[in-house]
Amino acid sequence: MHCSVAQCLEVVGEWWSMLIVRDAFFGVTRFEDFQRRLGISRNILTQRLQHLTEAGVLSRISYSEHPRRFHYRLTDKGRDLWPVLTAMRQWGDRYAAPDGPPLHMVHQACGETVDAVMVCSACGVPLGARDVRVTPGPGAGDPLVATAQP
Amino acid sequence: MHCSVAQCLEVVGEWWSMLIVRDAFFGVTRFEDFQRRLGISRNILTQRLQHLTEAGVLSRISYSEHPRRFHYRLTDKGRDLWPVLTAMRQWGDRYAAPDGPPLHMVHQACGETVDAVMVCSACGVPLGARDVRVTPGPGAGDPLVATAQP
Repeated sequence: MHCSVAQCLEVVGEWWSMLIVRDAFFGVTRFEDFQRRLGISRNILTQRLQHLTEAGVLSRISYSEHPRRFHYRLTDKGRDLWPVLTAMRQWGDRYAAPDGPPLHMVHQACGETVDAVMVCSACGVPLGARDVRVTPGPGAGDPLVATAQP
Repeated sequence: MHCSVAQCLEVVGEWWSMLIVRDAFFGVTRFEDFQRRLGISRNILTQRLQHLTEAGVLSRISYSEHPRRFHYRLTDKGRDLWPVLTAMRQWGDRYAAPDGPPLHMVHQACGETVDAVMVCSACGVPLGARDVRVTPGPGAGDPLVATAQP
């Protein structure tokens, strides 16, 4: 499918995968810690960690030979999922957090409790769905997708 | 789970759901059109449309009584998924589009082909994972989640 959303979902489009990535951002690195925090079966966690490692989102680093033990850390590719995670978190805060946001985000440079806002890379004003139109790019495959307007 | 990422995944954390939302942004409204574009079974599409409608992401509007026919349109809550979709698309463009992006996004106000960039709501500078720390918010339930640092 010539769609970058689909390509992203191919890697993280499974419930647990995105929560593993979330926990990796929190600094979790060890199988046992992911397992305890997520309450996920060992089998599924093993599969998901392997998938994320093969996809280049996590790197697996051995830290013990006997017994064999690994750390899982975000790669640059994994770290670049931060905007996806942040957009999800903010949507959940808005629509599914009746007691208020579970987390606040503090911008270290300015010291304020902030949200992330999407702005235009060219002119800097906030961007929303109604502000943009899409045109076919070099990787366009499906003319219907490529020409439909949001 | 006291986590807004998990709450978002509860609604759209299923491969097809996010692609249905994507197509809804492209202006697709009819069952037959979703089905043809996604190549998805009618059963699964029915389930997914029902789930998204119950979650308030799509609204179902009758446009014919005999036979009974519906349009599916994004609600405001659904339209607010645009940052999630856009962050996913840009990540896919970067890491999984060897022929280049399938789509370009044109900002209608400035006329440029642009990306969306996440910036700080308080001071306006670009935000990344390393620029922020998290603190417990009013809805914090899990002290481990609430105090871990990314």
